[in-house]
Amino acid sequence: MIESQVLKRIVPTKDEDLKINEIVEELKNKCRDEIKKLKINAEPILVGSVAKDTHLKKPDIDIFILFQKNTSRKQLEKYGLEIGKNVLNGKRKYAEHPYTTGVYKGYEIDLVPCYKITDTKEKMSAVDRTPFHTKYIIENLKKGQKNDVRLLKQFMKGIGVYSAEAKIQGFSGYLCELLILKYGSFQTLIKEACKWKERVLIEKIPKRFDEPMVFVDPVDENRNVASALSDEKLSLFTHSCREYIKNPGVKFFFPKKPRPLSKKILLKMMVERGTGFIAIVLDKIDIIDENLYPQLRKCEKSIRALCNENNFRVIDSGFYVNNEIFTIFELESLKLPSMKKHYGPMIFMPDAKKFREKWKKNAFTSPYIEKNRWVVNIKRKYINVSDLINENINNLSIGKDLSKIKNFRILEGKDIAQKKYLLHLTMFMDKKFRWEY
Amino acid sequence: MIESQVLKRIVPTKDEDLKINEIVEELKNKCRDEIKKLKINAEPILVGSVAKDTHLKKPDIDIFILFQKNTSRKQLEKYGLEIGKNVLNGKRKYAEHPYTTGVYKGYEIDLVPCYKITDTKEKMSAVDRTPFHTKYIIENLKKGQKNDVRLLKQFMKGIGVYSAEAKIQGFSGYLCELLILKYGSFQTLIKEACKWKERVLIEKIPKRFDEPMVFVDPVDENRNVASALSDEKLSLFTHSCREYIKNPGVKFFFPKKPRPLSKKILLKMMVERGTGFIAIVLDKIDIIDENLYPQLRKCEKSIRALCNENNFRVIDSGFYVNNEIFTIFELESLKLPSMKKHYGPMIFMPDAKKFREKWKKNAFTSPYIEKNRWVVNIKRKYINVSDLINENINNLSIGKDLSKIKNFRILEGKDIAQKKYLLHLTMFMDKKFRWEY
Repeated sequence: MIESQVLKRIVPTKDEDLKINEIVEELKNKCRDEIKKLKINAEPILVGSVAKDTHLKKPDIDIFILFQKNTSRKQLEKYGLEIGKNVLNGKRKYAEHPYTTGVYKGYEIDLVPCYKITDTKEKMSAVDRTPFHTKYIIENLKKGQKNDVRLLKQFMKGIGVYSAEAKIQGFSGYLCELLILKYGSFQTLIKEACKWKERVLIEKIPKRFDEPMVFVDPVDENRNVASALSDEKLSLFTHSCREYIKNPGVKFFFPKKPRPLSKKILLKMMVERGTGFIAIVLDKIDIIDENLYPQLRKCEKSIRALCNENNFRVIDSGFYVNNEIFTIFELESLKLPSMKKHYGPMIFMPDAKKFREKWKKNAFTSPYIEKNRWVVNIKRKYINVSDLINENINNLSIGKDLSKIKNFRILEGKDIAQKKYLLHLTMFMDKKFRWEY
Repeated sequence: MIESQVLKRIVPTKDEDLKINEIVEELKNKCRDEIKKLKINAEPILVGSVAKDTHLKKPDIDIFILFQKNTSRKQLEKYGLEIGKNVLNGKRKYAEHPYTTGVYKGYEIDLVPCYKITDTKEKMSAVDRTPFHTKYIIENLKKGQKNDVRLLKQFMKGIGVYSAEAKIQGFSGYLCELLILKYGSFQTLIKEACKWKERVLIEKIPKRFDEPMVFVDPVDENRNVASALSDEKLSLFTHSCREYIKNPGVKFFFPKKPRPLSKKILLKMMVERGTGFIAIVLDKIDIIDENLYPQLRKCEKSIRALCNENNFRVIDSGFYVNNEIFTIFELESLKLPSMKKHYGPMIFMPDAKKFREKWKKNAFTSPYIEKNRWVVNIKRKYINVSDLINENINNLSIGKDLSKIKNFRILEGKDIAQKKYLLHLTMFMDKKFRWEY
């Protein structure tokens, strides 16, 4: 019932598929023209979900340009980007690998150069495996299973675990297809996933992978298809499966957009908690998500560590990206007492004398003995967490690009509850799952 | 120079020693009369520092009544206390062992029954070794070393480490004598002690002792004479020795009495520290120090643990005894935020469901996932440390006698700075060594 309702909303119509096919042919022809102009030996092929017929409505279209193995890496990049520029008039992107993205007749297109290899063992660039994945799924996925893949993808989108990108750290489209191949159908997979434990090991269990889920790539046994999946997203998926089985609903596939609580309610919640809130707001920088999100996680982790090391105990933290980067920390307190205990050497150590000399003055107490160790109660360097962050953020390991941003704003307590941050604050504070809104 | 000055103040005069000898003879005769009346076979002997001629002015006089080995334990106690009562009209004391204390002609007298054994291996009661100690020192200590023992005792008194009693956990008189025997003189011992490291092992190094200092009893190789010595008092002694060598002074032997800082200054110090103070005051109970002090330490430790377990972080604590028992705790804060993070089971555990049901309501957030664990932010039970202590002190392990006291007073912050507690507060807050006042 629910699943057929969902399918109606996600399976592309015949008309759309016809249009997509037209677009693909046009693009491939344009690529061939460019290849001819460049007088090189290469060919365009369709890969990805459209090729495998597991795409949802308005899919991204992935076209790869296969280059001969004797092409130099430099040439591959140069020609690849030149074709991309002329065909799509799009944007150069660099992840591990340079490629072009653009919009063509309303569809997002990726145009990616790669090497034409005959075995995945020969892999020369990061994306050479993709045509093998496409071929494997086309050859193995039954017609009836294609809509199961589509349901799974939409379910994962809905609960927020779809995509292996750095932003999500979830399940790739290829992993969805393999899971349907493995378990047969959407329903069976969901039921099986309810039983998943800490580590999910599918197919062979090679020792060399220590990720939370391991699904060995059928076209390359040295690769774990689930390598990008985080603990948290795996947990979220298995929990969502249990909730869905207990009480199925369209809301898992199409959750409501969360609505911000009012400023008044949020401020009241803050006061009731008695905790301290501090937000660091940065201007959005123009780098791709694959670079941005790992840096954001690093930044969040570094600031948490800085706070905790200085006894500002972090309860929770998070970040949200729109036209600004908004990072938020909830602490036991924004302030600490002036005095802190400072442990010195054992009393019989050679440096004990130095310690005592150093703290003879400028301390709240004389150096004193606890068991066989010198201790002294001294002035804490940072009494306010905002001073701590402000003075140290530039020395933290917060990622290459983020660390260049000098113009960060620190907001404390009720000053955070500005209109533009109310939705972030709401999601940060209520911790609801997507389908619960 | 300094040492001869000190000796003038501590060595008993010939007149005093004559008086002490008279008293001892009178007491021994009184004991013999009582023994005759009781028609038992026993004899009084002088033991302790007076017998060894290592006593300071106004010494305690220790007389032991030696009973035959065939005396039953019950008879030993009964006759011992009866002799004590008739001779001293004193007070019965029970430590490990029953004895009588009283004042006779201005001197503190201990009258202690024990068994007359010929080898320490035959030891039948806790104090049977004492006559052997007395004999060993009389036979081995040179005449010229007696004043070294006296200096050492007075030095230890001055810095606060003299006596193996539970109250002090320091060095016994016998240990002082053995240390002088071992090192030859006060000066040599002090110099050697400056070099002492974490563990001090003197004479044999038997594996079976793990106390901070081990000095095997020359009359009983199964006993560590320094077994009562705490880490802290050993550290305090070695540190004092270093300070004394660097800058000798009468102040180490006769420190000034500490004077309380004014209420105004103490309150200012409290504010500057920004920390939280809480004191628990109990009526002094009528039990001997040997029972009181271990319970006080237990009490302090239990309350510290209670606070720390509930996130009230204790920086320092202490207790002071006069006509009241005053325990004090300095904390990072007297208050904590209402909200605390509560970790639940891994998401795939059978009890995960129960956890989620339990915290669906009455929490600040929905249960949420961190890595693969359930977490929820809930209401903290105790926001004020005074409520925590007040509601839990009766369930703590704070010692048999202390736990009977129902009438405790909790004082917070500036309410502690009452006139009668100013000296306690001063010593607790300035952490000076005795010779620094």
